Amino acid sequence: MENGEIPENANEHCPGPQADSAGKSDACQGCPNQQECATAPKGPDPDLVAIAERMATVKHKILVLSGKGGVGKSTFSAQLSYALAAMDFQVGLMDIDICGPSIPKMLGLEGQEIHQSNLGWSPVYVESNLGVMSIGFMLPNPDEAVIWRGPRKNGLIKQFLKDVYWGELDFLVVDAPPGTSDEHISIVQYLQATGIDGAIIVTTPQQVSLIDVRKEVSFCKKVGVEVLGVVENMSGLCQRLTDFRFVKLTENGEQNDITERVLGYMREKAPEMLDVIACSEVFDSSGGGATQMCHEMGVPFLGKVPLDPQLCKAAEEGRSCFADQKCGVSAPVLKSIIEKLLVMNQWREELQQVRE
Amino acid sequence: MENGEIPENANEHCPGPQADSAGKSDACQGCPNQQECATAPKGPDPDLVAIAERMATVKHKILVLSGKGGVGKSTFSAQLSYALAAMDFQVGLMDIDICGPSIPKMLGLEGQEIHQSNLGWSPVYVESNLGVMSIGFMLPNPDEAVIWRGPRKNGLIKQFLKDVYWGELDFLVVDAPPGTSDEHISIVQYLQATGIDGAIIVTTPQQVSLIDVRKEVSFCKKVGVEVLGVVENMSGLCQRLTDFRFVKLTENGEQNDITERVLGYMREKAPEMLDVIACSEVFDSSGGGATQMCHEMGVPFLGKVPLDPQLCKAAEEGRSCFADQKCGVSAPVLKSIIEKLLVMNQWREELQQVRE
Repeated sequence: MENGEIPENANEHCPGPQADSAGKSDACQGCPNQQECATAPKGPDPDLVAIAERMATVKHKILVLSGKGGVGKSTFSAQLSYALAAMDFQVGLMDIDICGPSIPKMLGLEGQEIHQSNLGWSPVYVESNLGVMSIGFMLPNPDEAVIWRGPRKNGLIKQFLKDVYWGELDFLVVDAPPGTSDEHISIVQYLQATGIDGAIIVTTPQQVSLIDVRKEVSFCKKVGVEVLGVVENMSGLCQRLTDFRFVKLTENGEQNDITERVLGYMREKAPEMLDVIACSEVFDSSGGGATQMCHEMGVPFLGKVPLDPQLCKAAEEGRSCFADQKCGVSAPVLKSIIEKLLVMNQWREELQQVRE
Repeated sequence: MENGEIPENANEHCPGPQADSAGKSDACQGCPNQQECATAPKGPDPDLVAIAERMATVKHKILVLSGKGGVGKSTFSAQLSYALAAMDFQVGLMDIDICGPSIPKMLGLEGQEIHQSNLGWSPVYVESNLGVMSIGFMLPNPDEAVIWRGPRKNGLIKQFLKDVYWGELDFLVVDAPPGTSDEHISIVQYLQATGIDGAIIVTTPQQVSLIDVRKEVSFCKKVGVEVLGVVENMSGLCQRLTDFRFVKLTENGEQNDITERVLGYMREKAPEMLDVIACSEVFDSSGGGATQMCHEMGVPFLGKVPLDPQLCKAAEEGRSCFADQKCGVSAPVLKSIIEKLLVMNQWREELQQVRE
């Protein structure tokens, strides 16, 4: 009965374990929790008070969610944090994917460790205005599985909120694992009283992914978190024709590489092809993709990010996609999505006023 | 203290809640669970006995796991089940992704419901020899989020094992969500005594995905489940050049569609290009991909499945990729992976002998 939640096996009309009548009302007769409720200390969870104190120096809290995994949620969280930091905001990025933390690698921080000071746990810093916290920094062996059930995961998330010294932050970006279970219920429960600005939901265009995004939107509505918007990621692959490898299939299905021949052929016979960009849908979006879904569910659509092998590479190498010109297909779109977020929520004006 | 697990808050040298000395040994002094342990009934969990009875008619149990989500695990589980059923095996497919079930859609069973008979819950059948069980069949509204913490998810998984009447099965394929948490610990715990043949781990070639696969392999080793092999999925996009869309970028970054012009141009000036297949790596595999990882961790590598838009489409539409010739790039590879599994584990010979 962590934090006053109504237990699943409670009787109907349960007054809630935090109520004065807990364990003593008529509805409590025969409930398996009756004795515990009647005798447990009442009042707010002292940990929530500690969390509220830590969060008093954080201006905006943004959750990054997805229904399905592997849609590029962590890549988006990482690049969002890079972009906000490049705009001179103070940014914290918290990874609450306990069993599969990708954030340390995506920010080029593999092998780093968390240090403790008298102010609390210190995040690992990419730049002086971009701090990161992840269980990835706490594992002695990166290959080792974190085989934890819910309560232990919730305990660590609570510690991240309660014990990390972020200092003054303009934005705390929280990267969640896929789904709507322990981590999600807990982060909302722990942060709700301190104010969550809202959630960004990342998806891919296929129906199988959109089914789960609808569930994620329904989760946000149920727990009272605003949906700031939906990002459609991996929205088709776009790449210069000359960056492809070309093959012919032999009769028994093997691939014969003919890249050199094709490139030579193009140069000689069809030079107009050399600067053409070839696009493939990859994931079927005949159902209308995220645009359609957003319209139906009444949530903002933020934009489509194409599947850009260069963005995947930046994520693999722990680099910002905005630092150079390599991610020409994806970086401008990501930038405009982040601009849209700042404008829609009037964050820039507000934060500038505070500074002046 | 479900199923005799040692609770997280137990004292050091805990004898285990199922031991005769539980709650009574020296080590139990002051443990918060002491009283419960001392008074709880001992002996095997009666549910595990019921599960063992149900599983007595199932010859082989295969888990399909992945470290990261979105790597095509459910697509693989679905196509593995289709392939085994097409070989005339009796197949059951159980989806234990409680918060994001994709299996009903991928088998073309959306909107179907589970029925109850005096033998138990009846799976939903694609064919007479391919039955499917998923929480997706139990939700009145598919958009609604399943906001469940661990214990409730574990309870449903137990019911799937205990209450579903599968009849005689050659294979039970279990599709798990990504990670190493409640669902994974539970399915292994519930099935271990009945014998798990092993786990197939699905990944994509990037390092960020492989990091999590290493954790999954470490999980299997820790809980004593054999790794049957690793499948590298989305291993580069391969598609006929004529199936691409072609664009030129305008000066302000907008896309100008010139597909018709490029195709006409190729037909006229470069007809040799028309049956060329263009491949893109998409996900960076410069780290050696899954082959290298398997070698390092001493587990079998089963094969690489290219990112085939036609396979994505088959999954979206709930079709077998083996039923027609559309998935020419992916289906032959999937088939050879499944053949490899049957040969390596001598399943075909064994099952044929049983029939004769």
